Amino acid sequence: MVLVATRNPLNIGASARAMANFGFRNLRVVQPYDVAFREARSAVGAAPLLAAAEEFASVADAVADATLVVGTTSIGHRELQHPVRRLEYGAKLIRRRLERSPVALLFGSEKFGLSNEDLSYCNWLMHIPTADQKLSMNLGQAVALCLYELARNPRAVDARPERSKPAAAGEIEQASVLLVEALRRSGYIQTLTEASAEEKVRRLVRRLKISQHDAPVLLGMLRQMLWKMGKGQ
Amino acid sequence: MVLVATRNPLNIGASARAMANFGFRNLRVVQPYDVAFREARSAVGAAPLLAAAEEFASVADAVADATLVVGTTSIGHRELQHPVRRLEYGAKLIRRRLERSPVALLFGSEKFGLSNEDLSYCNWLMHIPTADQKLSMNLGQAVALCLYELARNPRAVDARPERSKPAAAGEIEQASVLLVEALRRSGYIQTLTEASAEEKVRRLVRRLKISQHDAPVLLGMLRQMLWKMGKGQ
Repeated sequence: MVLVATRNPLNIGASARAMANFGFRNLRVVQPYDVAFREARSAVGAAPLLAAAEEFASVADAVADATLVVGTTSIGHRELQHPVRRLEYGAKLIRRRLERSPVALLFGSEKFGLSNEDLSYCNWLMHIPTADQKLSMNLGQAVALCLYELARNPRAVDARPERSKPAAAGEIEQASVLLVEALRRSGYIQTLTEASAEEKVRRLVRRLKISQHDAPVLLGMLRQMLWKMGKGQ
Repeated sequence: MVLVATRNPLNIGASARAMANFGFRNLRVVQPYDVAFREARSAVGAAPLLAAAEEFASVADAVADATLVVGTTSIGHRELQHPVRRLEYGAKLIRRRLERSPVALLFGSEKFGLSNEDLSYCNWLMHIPTADQKLSMNLGQAVALCLYELARNPRAVDARPERSKPAAAGEIEQASVLLVEALRRSGYIQTLTEASAEEKVRRLVRRLKISQHDAPVLLGMLRQMLWKMGKGQ
């Protein structure tokens, strides 16, 4: 990752932190405004990465060993000559290329982004799709987005997480029975003739989707309340 | 979006900016450390959003009108009782819910994240998948990632961008002819008997994938060089 003419060392620090967050290592800076950028406080957990950052005098030097050079922009692009790809699609291309050879990802300064000269070293541009194309993104946030997308596992969106295991039907029924009894003792269910109440409770308890973990807790609560209410009428 | 006990007003500002970037409006803060957070300098372009931010004394009040309350965490979660969903998947669920009713997305303080009490108001947790689970994310960057993912168009990853139009075969051939002539005049192609050289050049020129936009420029360059080199031998 190459930061070009970054003004605020906090942004270099935040970028380094995002690199650490998403498992990227190689940070390069081209003519940063603050030469003391290595002390950036926003680099929580990324001190080694910042210490190893390489400084370059020009974009040409910083990207010399890359086989693909990609510039980033969050504003509608200026140079129609450059192919512009949306982040989601561009990141996919970069991911593939990274398997074989080094890629340089360029971020411009906070105020002006990448200059036309910087852009002339790029094979294409990557565009972060924002709602308001006139409003630029914060540099540290833009870096985080790009690295997150690069580190993305395309199948994650469909990978359902482990769900809490549902309680067994026996426990659910126990809960229904205890609840019906508690409702009787409390006077909520008035007469024994209201058999339909029991059915309604049974359905309601099933709709709650009680987990294996919570079932014994709920049963304990109900038992305690039953005890407190005594034998009822 | 609900920011709970945020310490640094710069992070509130950066969060507001990310909301503006991705088209979200409703910012709520619960007991921010700095009551002057509305002046955050990092809120470029998000001043109206910050001015309209609502302050609450408790998480319960801040989430009262939401039908789904989601807590965020970038560190491996602590509370196994809570279902935890990866950002990519969780964002999909939130997107769907947002079509019908309000959702509250909670972010905790920079140092400690959401407290166990905060978490008890959440239906589930959303986890940002980072490379190093022990290293927390910067708050402003975490907010930007979540909103980016929420605003994501699931089809964008396959939506190829407009490509630059390729030049027509006629122009490509013109470029080949001019290049062969230039190579002859410069002495690169030595003898007229080397007919295969012409073929090689023709293939090379086709591999360059010259665009409609660049073709006339390249032809102009070649003509100028031919003119400079004169009629040759």
